[in-house]
Amino acid sequence: MGNDSATGVVFTRNPGDGTRKVFGEYLVNAQGEDVVAGIRTPKTIDFLEKELPHTFIQLMKTCAKLEKHYKEPQDLEFTVEQGKFYMLQTRSAKMNALGMIRTSVEMVKEKLISKERALTRLHPDQLEQLLHKTINQEAVKSHSPLVKGIAASPGAATGVVVFDVKKAVKMGEDGVKVVLVREETKPEDVPAFFASVGILTSRGGKTSHAAVVARGMGKPCIVGCTDMKIDYSTKKFQVDSKTVHEGEVLTIDGSQGIVFLGEIPTVEPEVTSELKTIIQWAEQIKRLGIRANADTPEAARLARNYGAKGIGLCRTERMFNAQDRLGLFVDMIMARNVEERKEVLEKLLVLQKSDFKEILKVMEGYKVTIRLLDPPLHEFLPNIEELINKVHRLENQNSPEELEKTRKILARARELAEINPMMGHRGVRVGITFPEIYEMQVRAICEAAGELLKENTDARAQIMVPQVGSIDELNQIKRIYDTIKLSVESKMGLKLKINFGTMLEVVRSCITADELARTAEFFSFGTNDLTQAVYSFSREDVEGKFLPEYLEKEILQENPFQSVDVNGVGSLMEIAISKGRKNRPDMEIGICGEHGGDPSSISFFHKAGLSYVSASSHRIPIAILAAAQAALADKPKKKTRTKKTKRR
Amino acid sequence: MGNDSATGVVFTRNPGDGTRKVFGEYLVNAQGEDVVAGIRTPKTIDFLEKELPHTFIQLMKTCAKLEKHYKEPQDLEFTVEQGKFYMLQTRSAKMNALGMIRTSVEMVKEKLISKERALTRLHPDQLEQLLHKTINQEAVKSHSPLVKGIAASPGAATGVVVFDVKKAVKMGEDGVKVVLVREETKPEDVPAFFASVGILTSRGGKTSHAAVVARGMGKPCIVGCTDMKIDYSTKKFQVDSKTVHEGEVLTIDGSQGIVFLGEIPTVEPEVTSELKTIIQWAEQIKRLGIRANADTPEAARLARNYGAKGIGLCRTERMFNAQDRLGLFVDMIMARNVEERKEVLEKLLVLQKSDFKEILKVMEGYKVTIRLLDPPLHEFLPNIEELINKVHRLENQNSPEELEKTRKILARARELAEINPMMGHRGVRVGITFPEIYEMQVRAICEAAGELLKENTDARAQIMVPQVGSIDELNQIKRIYDTIKLSVESKMGLKLKINFGTMLEVVRSCITADELARTAEFFSFGTNDLTQAVYSFSREDVEGKFLPEYLEKEILQENPFQSVDVNGVGSLMEIAISKGRKNRPDMEIGICGEHGGDPSSISFFHKAGLSYVSASSHRIPIAILAAAQAALADKPKKKTRTKKTKRR
Repeated sequence: MGNDSATGVVFTRNPGDGTRKVFGEYLVNAQGEDVVAGIRTPKTIDFLEKELPHTFIQLMKTCAKLEKHYKEPQDLEFTVEQGKFYMLQTRSAKMNALGMIRTSVEMVKEKLISKERALTRLHPDQLEQLLHKTINQEAVKSHSPLVKGIAASPGAATGVVVFDVKKAVKMGEDGVKVVLVREETKPEDVPAFFASVGILTSRGGKTSHAAVVARGMGKPCIVGCTDMKIDYSTKKFQVDSKTVHEGEVLTIDGSQGIVFLGEIPTVEPEVTSELKTIIQWAEQIKRLGIRANADTPEAARLARNYGAKGIGLCRTERMFNAQDRLGLFVDMIMARNVEERKEVLEKLLVLQKSDFKEILKVMEGYKVTIRLLDPPLHEFLPNIEELINKVHRLENQNSPEELEKTRKILARARELAEINPMMGHRGVRVGITFPEIYEMQVRAICEAAGELLKENTDARAQIMVPQVGSIDELNQIKRIYDTIKLSVESKMGLKLKINFGTMLEVVRSCITADELARTAEFFSFGTNDLTQAVYSFSREDVEGKFLPEYLEKEILQENPFQSVDVNGVGSLMEIAISKGRKNRPDMEIGICGEHGGDPSSISFFHKAGLSYVSASSHRIPIAILAAAQAALADKPKKKTRTKKTKRR
Repeated sequence: MGNDSATGVVFTRNPGDGTRKVFGEYLVNAQGEDVVAGIRTPKTIDFLEKELPHTFIQLMKTCAKLEKHYKEPQDLEFTVEQGKFYMLQTRSAKMNALGMIRTSVEMVKEKLISKERALTRLHPDQLEQLLHKTINQEAVKSHSPLVKGIAASPGAATGVVVFDVKKAVKMGEDGVKVVLVREETKPEDVPAFFASVGILTSRGGKTSHAAVVARGMGKPCIVGCTDMKIDYSTKKFQVDSKTVHEGEVLTIDGSQGIVFLGEIPTVEPEVTSELKTIIQWAEQIKRLGIRANADTPEAARLARNYGAKGIGLCRTERMFNAQDRLGLFVDMIMARNVEERKEVLEKLLVLQKSDFKEILKVMEGYKVTIRLLDPPLHEFLPNIEELINKVHRLENQNSPEELEKTRKILARARELAEINPMMGHRGVRVGITFPEIYEMQVRAICEAAGELLKENTDARAQIMVPQVGSIDELNQIKRIYDTIKLSVESKMGLKLKINFGTMLEVVRSCITADELARTAEFFSFGTNDLTQAVYSFSREDVEGKFLPEYLEKEILQENPFQSVDVNGVGSLMEIAISKGRKNRPDMEIGICGEHGGDPSSISFFHKAGLSYVSASSHRIPIAILAAAQAALADKPKKKTRTKKTKRR
């Protein structure tokens, strides 16, 4: 109806970064459909001030009024008919993480919303975007996607395409940035995950092997790129008419599930001041403690920066897997008797002690829970099939010594091999049958703590025993600990304060938690293993077998290894918590499984009355926010916290 | 003090067979030491009647008096000083099984003891001796033992020594009676167990692999013969200076743990009329139902003879393992699509239906609980290492078709291989992902039941789903069952009465038993798998790894796979029973694990309020007696049976 008529769509704040400035477009002498259809190019809202100044003032007033009413940035549509301003519709604006965070903080400052509201309007998982490398948003505009898949693990990475697992390992070791491209992955492909900057598969879903492993390692991953046709034999893949050969460069955006050909600059994650503010607020409100799963001083430092107050799980075996120690550890396994074994353990003691000292120092003032050796010994030996091949190879060469050594390792690997290693000779069972291993670890912890005490460092080591199923197992290790502690104390002339506790990851430990609480000073649920045992699902197998079909047929609503199974695993945890606190009312009980970083699981852990969750470093801010939300949701019934809570 | 003085030791009844006749020896003009020392040969007590008639009468009167007082046959010592009779000491006589049974029955007839006392004075495990082949006691006198070990599985057997597993299998198949002799055994040696009449190992204890497997199969077994030094390379073993070569004949007495060189006649087990009487009395008193684990019509017949009132566990996979079916089952696994798979399943349907019909007929009038397929599919394919070797062999021969086929099987075996098969793709998970397999089995059961109904046979089939962990899994199979039942009913023009239930062997099924009870008409605990899951102990691994050390160090008082763990597994069972009966008060709940035949476990099962136990056929009489004893022990608090009972 002429140039004094117009139509437009605006956000009251910029949905891309949250800036407090009306953001949008309008068209003069047009209908709403014209804006949406994209036939005419609309003008940005800034022009409206000059073109229709009266309307502009009305729009600005309306925006302010709507925000005040809805207490959320709005996404609204308006029209102007011959100078008269009409509001057509409004709804809360959808924003990315950056925008949500910034508006949360600013709306509080503007007194538009409370801090509580600022926290609850955020989705914790959104924070993930801010904690990983992202694609440069400017640079990406000049690239069109090659193919799309399922965003399985966030972050962005650039590397050369490699199809072969061994080749990927080799190239990764040589310092080449590799993107592993496979139809699907299997457990034996895991070494290639370590060697690659990103993983891309043509099959599988969010719970496929590739997705789960990549997430665990914090590596970008896209799965289920069904349009990508891989041909291993010719080492290439095809997307429609485009062919990509091994060696070509790809950039993958694991947060969006988009694959690009060629290199696109990436942006390092940055903790904005608004994010810091949100975390601060969340920390004031949450009641759950937040600790980190961290195995190295670097990881501990990162975790502390992200706001972790302590380490809930330090896996000592990760230290043995380092290049310079694995050889020693294999020697220990190959030892023919206790004396030989102790000799090697003396060397490992020195290394472990220095690791522990550094981690304890980084986490000064906070508890560091060190888990004694957990995996079965055979996990440190090479794969049997590989050893067989090596023996064949060496038989044809002329190196009798090497052959003899390999044969011995093969024999030992066969001897230690298990049909169901997950339920085999591991954790406390190794500690009991090879007590010298746990003795070494306990001594390393005691000596590290003692030396730090002498330096006046506030080191707070805790010793945690894995795989415990009965009080007799725990007491056996407690005796080892008591003896060694006493000997270190008398040698160093000081008193150590080290807590002694146990994992609850075996079903029987939950059922008999009252007995365990007599010896254990703290509990930490291992919900990965517990979920396995409660479902009788092997974590390493089900992903590639029946789990996808279970999710598809809705026999499972969620992957229980991602989000804790409240009805099953949760019930057992509640039994254990109530039994444990019956005999030790002030007992600290935490959880250090993968679920420690999952918001919906955190909500349950809060309700169940846990003391803390321990999550991987890069999920600490997410856990803090989720814990605050759980506390807020719980507010009206504040006093019922430790009582039995409703199930979802 | 002269010929009117004497000393002697007698049993008031014969301890060897229980005959009611004083049994013993005496020496005239001697002291007690002389009888014990064996310097002079004592006379049997029969002579006393002539030699010292007055003493004889006094002794007889004393025996009767003591038995009346102690209500047990006595083992007593007397002396005679110049005609005067003195009683020195008396104690209850130790007797073998035959003696215990006979005296139990006769003392009741003599009104010396009550039926209750007759039952409680027996140890159920003693019955085992009467249910297995034994060494001819006369013949054995002319043989001296070669070596002794641990009596690991009862019964006697004669066969030729074979050290090599494959050779044992081959010879066994050729009809040779083989005794497998090994330092220790591993799961891959199991085929040789089937092929052998007995097993003998130089290492291991009562819970070693060899012991457990042999007991499971009811084969005689001796383990831990540490004096036996085996040399596999020269195919012989040495005991001190004696050498035994492969091919020589041995007789082993698994009930006593004694090895003899050469053949000794054995005696077939015989169910004596006294044993029948005991079982009859026990049946009147026990409250637990007793059913059998039986997979074939023969086993069902044996079980019924032994007193089993129904089958608590019929494992359908055992039928597939039979020589004539395994090939078909492998074809089913190798099928490239559902159509191909269904084609093979049609053939298997015919075989399964006829199996089911026969078993149902044998057990007419009693419930027969048929468990749908439980193991993972890869268990039916050859071992991967064997397949690799076969491929190598075939590559050197000229048989491209066979090679191609083997390669395909190898590829499929690799595809199906699992890291922890016990917690993998098995049971209901296979039923859900390959529904056509369970469809075939359910149809076979429905049609078998229908055909028997038409013949007026009182067949009582029950369908049981294994490995269930959630109600959604169970409901998925229930829908399959409902559809097929309806179709069979309409086709045959009849109404089927088949109960539909589930195993409780996954921890989560116990925790959510209330939900499961809405669909399941009965529960059956699978305590083998449940024990595994509660402890996180792999049954197949722990025996040869840490379990012996755990028992030795008393971290475990008993092997939890032999005697149910009341504190852990038992608590979980009690939770499940109470939750299940909350939603279905009259629910039949049984147990069909190995523990079903273990007396101390049976005592717990009774207290926990189970409806029945199901045990291997040869343990049925033991289970009946144990169940009666449990009922008797429970008598004073008869009414509290279903309430929470004290823990041991």
